[in-house]
Amino acid sequence: MLVEKKIFHVGDYQTQLGEHIPNVAFGYETYGELNAKRDNAILLPHYFSGSSHAAGKYKNSDAEAGYWDALIGPGKAIDTNTFFVIGVDCLNNINGFNPNVHSTGPTTIRPSTGKPWGMAFPDLTTVDLVNVQKPLLDSLGIEKLYAAIGASGGSIQSMQWAATFPACVERVIAVVPPGIRLSEYTSAIVEMWTAPIKVDANWCDGGYYDSAFPEKGLDASLRLITINGLHYRMASKLFPIEDVKQEAGKGSRHLQSETGFMDYIHAFCDQRKVGIDPNAIIKLADTLQTFDIRDDLEKISAKMLFIVCDEDLIFQPADALASYQQLEASPVDTALVRFNSDYGHLGAILDTDKFADDIRTFLQR
Amino acid sequence: MLVEKKIFHVGDYQTQLGEHIPNVAFGYETYGELNAKRDNAILLPHYFSGSSHAAGKYKNSDAEAGYWDALIGPGKAIDTNTFFVIGVDCLNNINGFNPNVHSTGPTTIRPSTGKPWGMAFPDLTTVDLVNVQKPLLDSLGIEKLYAAIGASGGSIQSMQWAATFPACVERVIAVVPPGIRLSEYTSAIVEMWTAPIKVDANWCDGGYYDSAFPEKGLDASLRLITINGLHYRMASKLFPIEDVKQEAGKGSRHLQSETGFMDYIHAFCDQRKVGIDPNAIIKLADTLQTFDIRDDLEKISAKMLFIVCDEDLIFQPADALASYQQLEASPVDTALVRFNSDYGHLGAILDTDKFADDIRTFLQR
Repeated sequence: MLVEKKIFHVGDYQTQLGEHIPNVAFGYETYGELNAKRDNAILLPHYFSGSSHAAGKYKNSDAEAGYWDALIGPGKAIDTNTFFVIGVDCLNNINGFNPNVHSTGPTTIRPSTGKPWGMAFPDLTTVDLVNVQKPLLDSLGIEKLYAAIGASGGSIQSMQWAATFPACVERVIAVVPPGIRLSEYTSAIVEMWTAPIKVDANWCDGGYYDSAFPEKGLDASLRLITINGLHYRMASKLFPIEDVKQEAGKGSRHLQSETGFMDYIHAFCDQRKVGIDPNAIIKLADTLQTFDIRDDLEKISAKMLFIVCDEDLIFQPADALASYQQLEASPVDTALVRFNSDYGHLGAILDTDKFADDIRTFLQR
Repeated sequence: MLVEKKIFHVGDYQTQLGEHIPNVAFGYETYGELNAKRDNAILLPHYFSGSSHAAGKYKNSDAEAGYWDALIGPGKAIDTNTFFVIGVDCLNNINGFNPNVHSTGPTTIRPSTGKPWGMAFPDLTTVDLVNVQKPLLDSLGIEKLYAAIGASGGSIQSMQWAATFPACVERVIAVVPPGIRLSEYTSAIVEMWTAPIKVDANWCDGGYYDSAFPEKGLDASLRLITINGLHYRMASKLFPIEDVKQEAGKGSRHLQSETGFMDYIHAFCDQRKVGIDPNAIIKLADTLQTFDIRDDLEKISAKMLFIVCDEDLIFQPADALASYQQLEASPVDTALVRFNSDYGHLGAILDTDKFADDIRTFLQR
């Protein structure tokens, strides 16, 4: 499936916290066809480090397809023979230097200064993330989404859609969700992802765009995010302890940097870091921490499916399950599915077979 | 109970990896009396950020007693009416600037240069940690320990004692142990504790002793260690979500740094950081990753008690339980106790009531 990145121009936007952003734009991709009644649209916001590139390739020679290519396409769980799927970049997408990402954020030139916004880019709430996506649907003539679906940070935006625009969302599928708000502990974990960047002297309070890049801080941040994102069982399976047995006290050096799992993490992050803007990580981590739809449950009309990974070490299953109980006690029509994955939180992307059928079934409800 | 810090001089020491450290010394404290047969001694190595100050106060006006004061004293679980307890600083104790800690490490002046060792301090294995403690027991005329007991890093040293000096240890009580080696995932977590320090430009590859101190890196490192050390349930209990409810989209700012739990972490770490040497954190994190006694099980004669916290997010209970099964299949006489604590890994220090009786009982076996 060959796909194309498009850019949507929102225009000027006033944030929830009262700040002004001129010329807001973001990238999006669509898969399948919008039907005549315009009632087969599925919105697909992305996870923390993702983008709107959810399926297909830009050209046949691309090394990899979009992140949920296993789930989206003709005959797949999110069937593009039936549905019109819209992947959207979130505002302040962290891949600010990636030429395929067009979301307004800290790397965007601020018209009043002629320089990148940097950390002066306005603080956003999760409400802002969905507010700017709404005009895209309006422009396509879509009044009601058949579903909003997302993993992790994408589940947050999908739920925020149902809370902010209750008349516009019929179904929400929240894969590895944090629950209906971010817990204090999860907030602390997310906050710690930003710490190594802030420690890096090259960060300069975000003013590194024409000086040295805070690469060490970014590297450490991504390693932390990736280790948090995986489950310890995967480390044991990928690198069976018998294979990597340390030679303690036998004359060789055997420090962590030489073990297989940490090598794997380094290689994974070296691939992942290309195009990422450290300021955007800090800003997006702050934004996620504003997520809280507990006061909105009475007005949500969407049916909701929680798909929870029991090995999730970022969004603790206990939080999602407690939220599920709150949803069950509310008027929201809610369903729950649990799956196991050695990939932990990243199972949402790397282990989609585990819940593909659950998505397919729920989309027929 | 008033106690006194003493210093033991080991002399020159050759490390497992073949390096030479002159004038090795470390601090220790004793509680209770060694009996005539010298068979009532309990060795108490400490956890990652701890010291030999396990019980009592140096003077009545001290704000706090030693870390396991609730467990150690007349009539307590580790009864000083019966036992002679020896708290020992590990070599390369991370509190290198604390005047009450006397352990040789990166802050020690290297005789050949007249300057602190810094990162040139030799890499140590967990075998080195116990090797240097042995001469102290020899000097006290103790041939056999009634028990070696420790929490976390202290459990590692206690188990290493039973493996390295099998004839000298009758019992091991390992509280919140990692199992009988550090897993790949746990190694990665421990390695990440050091990342913010290494990112800090003031770290200068460890050469900061006569220049600016890498305080930001240390702060971030300690926050990470502390958040890992606690369980998310404690965050929820200390700061019920109803009390700290975020005002998303209602005009106020509500970023992580303003939430209760993160404030708590900051305050906790500001207290904790006094006297800590960042280089020692890096060196000790490396050392812990060498722990592996799987090849030693046949020769261990000590009875072992594992006390595992089900909410431990640093040393995953799954690892400890898998190791326990390996121990059960070996000749080692092993027992297991599990406890629950909202403090998670730190429950070993902050929730001692949960396992005090288990220690008392096992010491009578």
